[in-house]
Amino acid sequence: MGGSIAFDREVYIKRRNVLKKNFGKGKILLLGNVNSSMNFKDNHYPFKQDSTFLYYFGIDQPGLMAIIDVDKDREIIFGDELSIDDIIWTGPLPTLQSLAEQVGVQKVKSTSTIIKYVGDGIHFLPPYRPEHSILLSRLLGKKLHKVTKRASVKLIMAISQQREIKSEEEIVELNKAVTITNKMHLTVMESARIGMHEHELVGIAEKVARDHNVSLSFPPIMTTQGEVLHNHYYGNTLKPGDLLLFDGGCESISQYAGDITRTYPVDSVFSDRQRALYEIVYDAHQLAESVANPGTKFLDVHNAAAAKIVEGLIDIGLMKGDPEEAIINGAHTMFFQCGLGHMLGLDVHDMENFGEEYIGYTKDIIKRSDFGYKSLRLGKELKEGFVITIEPGIYIIPELIDMRREQRMYLDYINYDELDKWRNFGGIRLEDDFVITSNGAQLLGDDLPRMISEVENIRSKAYSQ
Amino acid sequence: MGGSIAFDREVYIKRRNVLKKNFGKGKILLLGNVNSSMNFKDNHYPFKQDSTFLYYFGIDQPGLMAIIDVDKDREIIFGDELSIDDIIWTGPLPTLQSLAEQVGVQKVKSTSTIIKYVGDGIHFLPPYRPEHSILLSRLLGKKLHKVTKRASVKLIMAISQQREIKSEEEIVELNKAVTITNKMHLTVMESARIGMHEHELVGIAEKVARDHNVSLSFPPIMTTQGEVLHNHYYGNTLKPGDLLLFDGGCESISQYAGDITRTYPVDSVFSDRQRALYEIVYDAHQLAESVANPGTKFLDVHNAAAAKIVEGLIDIGLMKGDPEEAIINGAHTMFFQCGLGHMLGLDVHDMENFGEEYIGYTKDIIKRSDFGYKSLRLGKELKEGFVITIEPGIYIIPELIDMRREQRMYLDYINYDELDKWRNFGGIRLEDDFVITSNGAQLLGDDLPRMISEVENIRSKAYSQ
Repeated sequence: MGGSIAFDREVYIKRRNVLKKNFGKGKILLLGNVNSSMNFKDNHYPFKQDSTFLYYFGIDQPGLMAIIDVDKDREIIFGDELSIDDIIWTGPLPTLQSLAEQVGVQKVKSTSTIIKYVGDGIHFLPPYRPEHSILLSRLLGKKLHKVTKRASVKLIMAISQQREIKSEEEIVELNKAVTITNKMHLTVMESARIGMHEHELVGIAEKVARDHNVSLSFPPIMTTQGEVLHNHYYGNTLKPGDLLLFDGGCESISQYAGDITRTYPVDSVFSDRQRALYEIVYDAHQLAESVANPGTKFLDVHNAAAAKIVEGLIDIGLMKGDPEEAIINGAHTMFFQCGLGHMLGLDVHDMENFGEEYIGYTKDIIKRSDFGYKSLRLGKELKEGFVITIEPGIYIIPELIDMRREQRMYLDYINYDELDKWRNFGGIRLEDDFVITSNGAQLLGDDLPRMISEVENIRSKAYSQ
Repeated sequence: MGGSIAFDREVYIKRRNVLKKNFGKGKILLLGNVNSSMNFKDNHYPFKQDSTFLYYFGIDQPGLMAIIDVDKDREIIFGDELSIDDIIWTGPLPTLQSLAEQVGVQKVKSTSTIIKYVGDGIHFLPPYRPEHSILLSRLLGKKLHKVTKRASVKLIMAISQQREIKSEEEIVELNKAVTITNKMHLTVMESARIGMHEHELVGIAEKVARDHNVSLSFPPIMTTQGEVLHNHYYGNTLKPGDLLLFDGGCESISQYAGDITRTYPVDSVFSDRQRALYEIVYDAHQLAESVANPGTKFLDVHNAAAAKIVEGLIDIGLMKGDPEEAIINGAHTMFFQCGLGHMLGLDVHDMENFGEEYIGYTKDIIKRSDFGYKSLRLGKELKEGFVITIEPGIYIIPELIDMRREQRMYLDYINYDELDKWRNFGGIRLEDDFVITSNGAQLLGDDLPRMISEVENIRSKAYSQ
């Protein structure tokens, strides 16, 4: 959160050297983020640095840019030093020059001079903030709507191939992020009681992050309506019989992201129905973890988890027919509408701004556009050093049930009459973070209760205080 | 925080009718805000609606626009209804059409059709988010950098003259905002103890806001270095002898802003020096409150507070000479570098995006550009219904002392040798929120301890728990 540089200068020098070597030839422009205005110019959202800038240049300040000149083997950071007038308002701060030296860059130039270094063939990443689109349009003399199309696929490939393999020091940081994240989850799990509001629990979660002087890695989902997948409403009251789904992550101080989900009863124990569906999700999670090995396509891991879910749902009578056929026909998407997981790193969806076709897929493994698969952010072969989430779920969505039934879809696989009795069940997701090693998927962070008996043990504490 | 509409439809109809009447003739385009991306497109900052859109149209959702056609006496809201596919991810939500009806607007059209309604003479406000600059550039067919210059002064004047006079229902909401804000301050005042970190106290403050299901109105300042005016670092540990300055505000559910500052010892009692400077700031605050009457220029209130500060500093030997002359020569800006206050409303600096020359000043009372006055956001005559902050302060800034001494400035007014002994003192600010009535400035919210005896009483609680 401002100021401190995460790693030794050698780390940044090495990262840039690897990039230059892989890139071969050319000039790279990397844009740091600027402050984003809320309701007027000087009321800013908390600053969030661009993850690629942070990865190669480590400086967590707004308004910086950098050029990596591969041909000349040199880097320049562009930004403006504080004036004496600024210092009266900010107090003494390290100079940009001294920060640059801490990340192994000697050359610092003022912002306005960058135009001299930017030519037509310069490589840059696709902009995801409008300020960057405007800046690129000006620097390149191209129309605004044409800028994104000119982003460099060569650069995307070079950076993503480097960043997707997490180094030892990154795994250390990701472990820290998950450890704080787990502490946050445990605190909420121990605190949630009947009659509380979702927003109070968000406050309890945020407090844990603040206690560690870190930010949340994304706006958390804290809901008794786990079946609402895009849910940032925190107004519900926790009622007996509800499930609480909390999907939230903390960053490490170095800004690596954690991303964990737990779902548990508002009561201290699971009801029979909750237990039944939870165990199916749990089994899918365990299975996915066991098959997420180097060389395996994540698409296949996703499908294995989906199959486990279908088998479980057949056992309890919500589905029927042949499990394999059900999946081929997409019937599992009645319950498991989203993807099994995604890349994790400095971004909670790591490098999502580069485009999923490059980060999650390849020329040969192309993203599917059908329902249930278009939400799978990662399909390609896992490699040692990948850090990913595994997050199977079952979501009973009344609107989807009604729509599919009306469309007369999945009649061979779904027991609609039985399912209708569950229509107000809600949703369950279990999510953990893993690094792929030669031995398979290894859990990051300490172990956060996931088994029913462990979870009920914690939940009973909430009521014994 | 999403969804609910603050007032009855009659309130919005009336607000728009007043605007149309004052405006007379023409067409007005008001842009609601869109989501802002953090580190990739779909990782958003919490949504913050544009305050003018909220004022006239009340709907707290991203991606809306509105046209008020004064000549035809009609309004249209532009936005897109959720598709059935969307509803699978969001759950059932009220339609845009039904929300529009709740604010008295019958016509809702899809986003893409707005181009048909936007002509060359349309009036719009200065954009403060780049998305709006881009959109306006496209809608108007004008170059990006020329868009801001084409913002309508006529519209700024019409809206600001309406919004600056707070209605009864707005005062109710502002009172709520300040009441929650005070609760937040009291909680922090009761919690701060030696050895804690600033960021832990930020967490305690944020928790109070979440408990009320509201947002903070701006990123809070929580610091033991109160003399650093632009300070969002939360890494310091609270030490004996430190002063803690907390400048923070909560919104009401309806998104009106509170903005309060308290400064108090980390210990349970003030030291002699702390007491001396605190009492000067306190007296300046009381004086400002007593002279902030309708018809008085806020610039004069600012100067009255500055004079009180100078008198106090002469009494304790940090300043010398003639108080009036000292102020004319700007010597008070050694201690009181910022403005006495600003407008408060839906924005914490209300309508700052319109331009301070319109909001805080007039054709006749023009903003000064000299140090100490260029930071005064409000100079014009106070009117009944204005809501403002009063926030005098004394800040001992070592860099400023050294610079002015080197420049040989204020030698007749500053006892530099004495001041040097205070160079590590820090800073004190006291800020409260007031509505200007025919009887003068009336405090908003319940009373938050401000007198030394009251503050010490609360502070001792922090150590008796």
